[in-house]
Amino acid sequence: MKFNFKAILNIMGILLLLNGAFMALCLPFAIQYKGGDWFAIALSSAITLAVGLTLRLLTKNREHKELKKRDGYIIVSGGWIVLSLFGTLPYLLSGAIPNFTDAFFETMSGFTTTGASILADIEVVPKGILFWRSLTQWIGGMGIIVLAVAILPLLGIGGMQLFVAEAPGIAPDKLQPRISETAKRLWYLYVGLTIAEMGLLMAGGVNFYDSINHSLTTMATGGFSTKNASAAHYDSPYIQYVFIVFMFLAGTSFTLTYFALKRNFKKVLRNEEFKVYVSFIAIITVVATITILVVTDNGMEKSFRDALFQVVSLITTTGFVSADYTAWAPFLTVLFFILLFVGGSAGSTAGGVKIVRHVVLFKNSFLELKRQLHPSAVMPVRINGKAIERNIVFQVLAFIMIYISIFLLGTVLLSAMNVDFDTAFGAVATTLGNVGPGIGKVGPMDNFAAMPVAGKWLLSFLMLLGRLELFTVLMLLSPHFWKKN
Amino acid sequence: MKFNFKAILNIMGILLLLNGAFMALCLPFAIQYKGGDWFAIALSSAITLAVGLTLRLLTKNREHKELKKRDGYIIVSGGWIVLSLFGTLPYLLSGAIPNFTDAFFETMSGFTTTGASILADIEVVPKGILFWRSLTQWIGGMGIIVLAVAILPLLGIGGMQLFVAEAPGIAPDKLQPRISETAKRLWYLYVGLTIAEMGLLMAGGVNFYDSINHSLTTMATGGFSTKNASAAHYDSPYIQYVFIVFMFLAGTSFTLTYFALKRNFKKVLRNEEFKVYVSFIAIITVVATITILVVTDNGMEKSFRDALFQVVSLITTTGFVSADYTAWAPFLTVLFFILLFVGGSAGSTAGGVKIVRHVVLFKNSFLELKRQLHPSAVMPVRINGKAIERNIVFQVLAFIMIYISIFLLGTVLLSAMNVDFDTAFGAVATTLGNVGPGIGKVGPMDNFAAMPVAGKWLLSFLMLLGRLELFTVLMLLSPHFWKKN
Repeated sequence: MKFNFKAILNIMGILLLLNGAFMALCLPFAIQYKGGDWFAIALSSAITLAVGLTLRLLTKNREHKELKKRDGYIIVSGGWIVLSLFGTLPYLLSGAIPNFTDAFFETMSGFTTTGASILADIEVVPKGILFWRSLTQWIGGMGIIVLAVAILPLLGIGGMQLFVAEAPGIAPDKLQPRISETAKRLWYLYVGLTIAEMGLLMAGGVNFYDSINHSLTTMATGGFSTKNASAAHYDSPYIQYVFIVFMFLAGTSFTLTYFALKRNFKKVLRNEEFKVYVSFIAIITVVATITILVVTDNGMEKSFRDALFQVVSLITTTGFVSADYTAWAPFLTVLFFILLFVGGSAGSTAGGVKIVRHVVLFKNSFLELKRQLHPSAVMPVRINGKAIERNIVFQVLAFIMIYISIFLLGTVLLSAMNVDFDTAFGAVATTLGNVGPGIGKVGPMDNFAAMPVAGKWLLSFLMLLGRLELFTVLMLLSPHFWKKN
Repeated sequence: MKFNFKAILNIMGILLLLNGAFMALCLPFAIQYKGGDWFAIALSSAITLAVGLTLRLLTKNREHKELKKRDGYIIVSGGWIVLSLFGTLPYLLSGAIPNFTDAFFETMSGFTTTGASILADIEVVPKGILFWRSLTQWIGGMGIIVLAVAILPLLGIGGMQLFVAEAPGIAPDKLQPRISETAKRLWYLYVGLTIAEMGLLMAGGVNFYDSINHSLTTMATGGFSTKNASAAHYDSPYIQYVFIVFMFLAGTSFTLTYFALKRNFKKVLRNEEFKVYVSFIAIITVVATITILVVTDNGMEKSFRDALFQVVSLITTTGFVSADYTAWAPFLTVLFFILLFVGGSAGSTAGGVKIVRHVVLFKNSFLELKRQLHPSAVMPVRINGKAIERNIVFQVLAFIMIYISIFLLGTVLLSAMNVDFDTAFGAVATTLGNVGPGIGKVGPMDNFAAMPVAGKWLLSFLMLLGRLELFTVLMLLSPHFWKKN
C-alpha cells in the first residue's frame, strides 16, 4: 500500500471532532440572541462529531506506520475540503444560506481565511450562524499556523524552507513529533492576540459579540465582518487603528512576534522579510495618502487612516474595508489591485505570494543583470545574510510563475462565464490571494452573490489553491502522484 | 578605457548613414503623390547622412580594438535610440507630426516594430512621410533579425542561447565576424517574403503603394497601416488571408523558414517551439471562433477569419486589426489581452516574451511538482529532445519575472497619470510586448493620441525595453555596468 489511508482517515476524524466541538461553541450566541438557529447548530455539531467519531473508531486498529510526505499532501488538501464540506451544515440546516454552492463558497472562504462573501445582507443572519462564520476563519488561521511552521517546510513547498530555520524549536525532520510542540507555542500567541484585540475593541465601545467576531477574523487575516459595511461601520479612528495594528500583527511571522515577546528584538530587527514588510507598507501608505489628499476633500488624518487601513488590509490579505478604495482614483485602483498579489509574511496567517518570495525574486532579478556580465561568477541570493541554495530560489521562481499562470487561467475561465474584464481579474486575484474584496463588481462595497454558479466553484477552488501554497493541491491533480512506483 | 567609444560612435555613424539612405527612398513617393513633403524628407535625409558621415570621419583613426560584450549593450540600445531620434525628422520637418513627443513615440513605435500610433487620421498624412513610417518598422525588423540570431545569444540574454544552436552557420563565438554572414542569409529571406506579400496583395487588387507599405509592416510584425481602419479596410477575405499567412511567417523563426525553403522539413517538424506556436494558434482560434459564432450573427467563415486574424496578429505582435475584438464578449477581451503576453517565436521579428520561453516555463513548472516528490532526482527541462542547462532555465524564469515586474510598474506609473484601469493595463501590455493595439481607450479602434505626454515617454521607453529583451536596456541603467573594475 503506497498511501497510509487508515492514518489519513483517522486524522480526518480528529479534524471533524474538533470542527464539531467548535460548532458547539456557537450555541451560546444562538441561545442568547434567540435567532432561531440553535437547533441547526446543535444538529450540525452532532452530525460532524458523529462522523468524526465513526472515522476514529473505524481506523482504531491501524498499524503504527509512519506518515510519509505523500500522505501529508492528502491530509492537508483533504482536511481543508472535509472541513469545508461539514462546515456548510450550519448554513444549510438553518436556512441562512439555503443553497449548497453558496454555503460551500462561504465556508471555503472562511477556512481559507479569504473573506469573500456571498451574503448581501450580513446583519440579518442569526448571531449563532454568524459566529460560526467568523469561527471558520479563526480555525483556518490555526490550521495555517501549523501548516506554515511545521508541515509545508517538510513538504518542501515553494521556498518555505527559507523560513523554517527561523522558527523556534524546529528542525527539518520527521513529520509528526515536532508539529505539536512548535504549533502549540504559536497557537498560544494566536489566542492571546485574539483576546487582546477583543479587549481593545470593547474598550473602544464595540459590544462583546462584535468584538469577538472581529478579533477572530482579524487574527486569521480573514476579514469576515458582522457588519454590512465591514470596518467602515466603525467611524471611530481608535477602533480602526486597533484593526490596523492587529491586521499588521496577523500578517507578521508569528515566530517573529514570539521572539519580540521574548525580548529578542535583534532577531526581529535583522529579519529582512519584516523590514521589507514594514517599509513596503510605509511607502505605499505615503503614496496612497498623498493621492487621497489630492483627489478628495478629506483631511490629513482621515486620508492617512484610509490609506493605511486599506494598504495593511490588502497586503496582509485580511480584506476588511474602511472605504471604497475603487472610488478615489484609477491610480489607487491599479495600485490596490496589485497589492492583491503581495501577501503578508511567511509564517503568518496571511495568504498570497508572501513578502519573502518577492524579496528572493527581486534580489535574483538584480543579480541576473550582474550574472549577464560575469557569467562564470557565483552570485547567490542572500536572505538575512545567508546564501540561499539555488534550488530554493528555483522553487520560489517556479511558485510565482505557477501562481501567475493559475491567475491568468482562472481569469480566462471566469470571463468565459461572461464576467467582465475588471471583475474577472479582481475576483480571481482576490480569491487566489485569499484577500476578500476585489475590483469591478466584486469591489470593496460589493459581494460575490451575483457570480455564476460555476464561477463560485472555480473561485472556491482558487481559494483552496492559494491558501495551500498551490503545490499541495496541484500535486494531487498530477497523475504522477498517484502512480505506484 | 573600459568602453570602446570610438568604435561605438563609428557604428552609430554607419547606422545613421543607412537611416539617411532609407529616408531618401521615400522621395519618389513624396514626388509622385505631390504631398508637399519632398523637401522635408530630403532635408531629413541630408541631415541624417551628414551626421552619420561626420561620426564616421571623426572616428576614422580608431585603433582596431575588438568590441566587447559591454560595448555590445551600448551599441544595441544606443542604436535604437539614435535611429529613433533622427527618425523623427521627417515627421517634424514636414509638420505631419509637429510635436516632438508624438514624433518620437511614433518613430520608436516604428523602429521597435510595435505599431502603436498617435495619428488619429492616418490617411491625411503625405504619402512620402507615411512610407517613412512603414519603413521604420521594416528597418526595425532587419535590426531585430541580426539582434536575435547574432547579438543577443552572444550577450547571453534571457535564454536566447536556446535558440542559437538552431541558426544556420552560427557558433557562439566572437562578436563581429559571424554576424554579417548569417544575418545576410536571413535578410534575403526577409526581403523575399516582403516582395512575395506585396505581389500577392497587388494580385488581390491592392494598389502598389498600399501593398508595399503593408508588406513592409507585416514582415516586421509592426502593424502600421496606411488606412485608418487598418486591415478592416480590406473586406476581401483573400486579402485578409494574405495578411494572416505573412503575419504567421513573420512570427516564425526565420532560420526555420530558411530550413523549410531548403526542404529540410524534418528540422521544422521536430522543432518544439514551432509545434507549440502552431497548436496554440489553432486552439485559441477554435475557441475564439466558437465564441464569436455564439455572440454575433456572423457566419462561419467570417467568424473563423476574424478569430484567426486577431489571434495571429496579437500572438505575432503585429497588431493589425480586422475587427473590434473588444466588442464581442468579455471573454475575448480577457483572452486577447493575455495574448499580448505571448509573443511569437524566438528568431522571428515578433516581440513579447516569445513562445520558447513559455515552453521552458511550463515544462519547468510541471517538473517542479515532480521535484517536490523526489528532491534528489535530476530532472532537466528538455527542448527539442535536448536537456537545457539549469542556468538557462534560470535566465528564462528571471526574464519572465522581470517582464511582469516592469509590466506592473509601468501600469502603476501610467495610472498615476490618471489613465484608467483597463487602458493602463492595455497600453503597457501592448507597448512592452511590441504589439500595437491594447484594450480600454487604446483598443483596436483607438490610438494613443490622448495619452498624457509623460505617458507617451513612458510607453516609448517600454517599447524599447520590450523590443531589446529587457536586459540590454536595463543593463545600461545599472550602476554596476558603468563601474570600472
